[in-house]
Amino acid sequence: MREWFSGECAARGLDLTEDRMGNQWAWWGDPDSSAPAGIVTGSHLDSVPDGGAFDGPLGVVSALLAIDRLKSDGFAPLRPIGVVNFVDEEGARFGVSCAGSRMITGVLSPDRARALQDADGITMAEAMRAAGWRPERLGPDPEALSRVGSFIELHIEQGRGLIDSGRAVGVGNAIWPHGRWRIDIPGEANHAGTTRLSDRRDAVIGCARAVLAARAAAETHGGLATIGKINIQPGGVNAIASSATAWLDARAADEPALRAIVAHIEKDVANSGAVVTEESWTPQTGFDSVLISRMASLIDGAPVMGTGAGHDAGILANAGVPAAMIFVRNPTGVSHSPSEWAEPEDCLAGVAALAAVLADLAGVQR
Amino acid sequence: MREWFSGECAARGLDLTEDRMGNQWAWWGDPDSSAPAGIVTGSHLDSVPDGGAFDGPLGVVSALLAIDRLKSDGFAPLRPIGVVNFVDEEGARFGVSCAGSRMITGVLSPDRARALQDADGITMAEAMRAAGWRPERLGPDPEALSRVGSFIELHIEQGRGLIDSGRAVGVGNAIWPHGRWRIDIPGEANHAGTTRLSDRRDAVIGCARAVLAARAAAETHGGLATIGKINIQPGGVNAIASSATAWLDARAADEPALRAIVAHIEKDVANSGAVVTEESWTPQTGFDSVLISRMASLIDGAPVMGTGAGHDAGILANAGVPAAMIFVRNPTGVSHSPSEWAEPEDCLAGVAALAAVLADLAGVQR
Repeated sequence: MREWFSGECAARGLDLTEDRMGNQWAWWGDPDSSAPAGIVTGSHLDSVPDGGAFDGPLGVVSALLAIDRLKSDGFAPLRPIGVVNFVDEEGARFGVSCAGSRMITGVLSPDRARALQDADGITMAEAMRAAGWRPERLGPDPEALSRVGSFIELHIEQGRGLIDSGRAVGVGNAIWPHGRWRIDIPGEANHAGTTRLSDRRDAVIGCARAVLAARAAAETHGGLATIGKINIQPGGVNAIASSATAWLDARAADEPALRAIVAHIEKDVANSGAVVTEESWTPQTGFDSVLISRMASLIDGAPVMGTGAGHDAGILANAGVPAAMIFVRNPTGVSHSPSEWAEPEDCLAGVAALAAVLADLAGVQR
Repeated sequence: MREWFSGECAARGLDLTEDRMGNQWAWWGDPDSSAPAGIVTGSHLDSVPDGGAFDGPLGVVSALLAIDRLKSDGFAPLRPIGVVNFVDEEGARFGVSCAGSRMITGVLSPDRARALQDADGITMAEAMRAAGWRPERLGPDPEALSRVGSFIELHIEQGRGLIDSGRAVGVGNAIWPHGRWRIDIPGEANHAGTTRLSDRRDAVIGCARAVLAARAAAETHGGLATIGKINIQPGGVNAIASSATAWLDARAADEPALRAIVAHIEKDVANSGAVVTEESWTPQTGFDSVLISRMASLIDGAPVMGTGAGHDAGILANAGVPAAMIFVRNPTGVSHSPSEWAEPEDCLAGVAALAAVLADLAGVQR
């Protein structure tokens, strides 16, 4: 995917650079020429296991096509325009989402990132070395960030808001606060065929209760809570589990509701001796209000909407970069699945909207 | 482990053969000389993931030490004595327990065995080839079985019966009926951060309900039911699960109780659209009553007891081989765990009991 991105950028005459996390930045114009800083768009090319083709790639492909459209229109940018491919947005392997943007903004420390382990116990540092990357380079990258005057991320919608409003394209104004927690459930290994029920400490029973507690907490407090990954030790068919780990993804429209969901789960699982540890936390994110108004006026009839999904745009916004998003209609609302989809005409409407926004922002010295 | 076994047998002058499944048989005396057939003891050397050192190996080591004792006593067997190392007793990798004895007795078909897959999708046939074994050879082995006049399996106790009776050694007379079932729970992949609770079909929720249904069914019908292995697809932290598979191990003192437990679970999980499929079934096994009485009289004060754990001795008994077991006290009752243990003096009492039984059975033409 990185090679494909490099090739597409080279074919368009864009200058490619990498920051200290390996995020790829391609520039039309010199980003270090002078103030004001550039207008950047893009998204990510990684996916979740068995995910869809649109979550991430649509934003990168649309960015390249928007530049094609501006070039064929003879547009000459007054500010540099950048296309970014953020690494490891989904956190599918090492568990921390938006690792690429969290690293360069200083939210994810290099030591913690290097020590993160995948399901096979391989650390991010080891995986980076195996991929030819030097993990010693990791760190915040204020130089790369200083080139970003505004950031617009186009993304497939991961819900049904645009279906309900009958529009192909919308403007994203906020991201719900969300986070990931690890629930460690203790047990005692023993033989499934000979251990009386009353003598058991079965971690899988505690894990099942945690799954149902998460659902009940989300229903009670009006948010979302999901357990999609569970690790059971030792994992034998005839062995009572000695431990289990469940990963919780929780979100809500505001932080008090989200904290209430997690506290509710913590209290319920304490009965099984389980411990809940926060692995990541993303506060409520409001995007840049000036940018949102401008985009809403440029994209005719676009509804302004929030989302429960985290995005690199949110990480950048929290680091002080004026940011906002464009959503493209998803005819089923299904995401993180092979059935994720957008109609070609809606994708083209997204490209047109993005090109209009880039032309507006990069065509005027402000 | 196989090399170790070969070496120990060679050091004792025993003749090693392998049957069509690769079970290793070492003989003191010619098993094909004449009727009556030999007296065989032994167990297995494989274990469960993160298991203990005694479940299996204690029976093989005790068999070799019992032969040492008989030889140093100047005992001359009138019938051949065999030591067997059964392969894949735990079924930890491919899911079918006692695969070695099930294959040679014709309970496990060669086609099914070759097609069994491990967690990485590798078939048993592929794993056998990688280990230098020819899977075409698999099949029932009546010739190997015909050499077994009686089978005595010594095993660490996997419960607290001998603690309660204050004895180092007991005689096993029965194995509870038991089996393994696969529970397939459907779901629909979607994004954990954007899908309303009411729009979800989350396989992990169905899986949690199956775990609790299994426990409730075992409590209601007075048996044992355990889920120790779960596989979730796609398994991403922020992805609603599209499917889950849970493996059920269930046992009870009689077959109607066991069937009632499984029917109870089937009924409960049907609400989640889940399907329960039988992967293995071992009927109630009563060991040979003549052998049991003889052993109980030879081992002073040994209690006669049943067990919920499956063993190769049970598979052989169901194939018509006169069989019984010797159990050695386990001071915690814990098994399938690194804390599984037997005191050295109890292990030696087990060796003495086994030697006495072998001398009795192999020293008399009956």
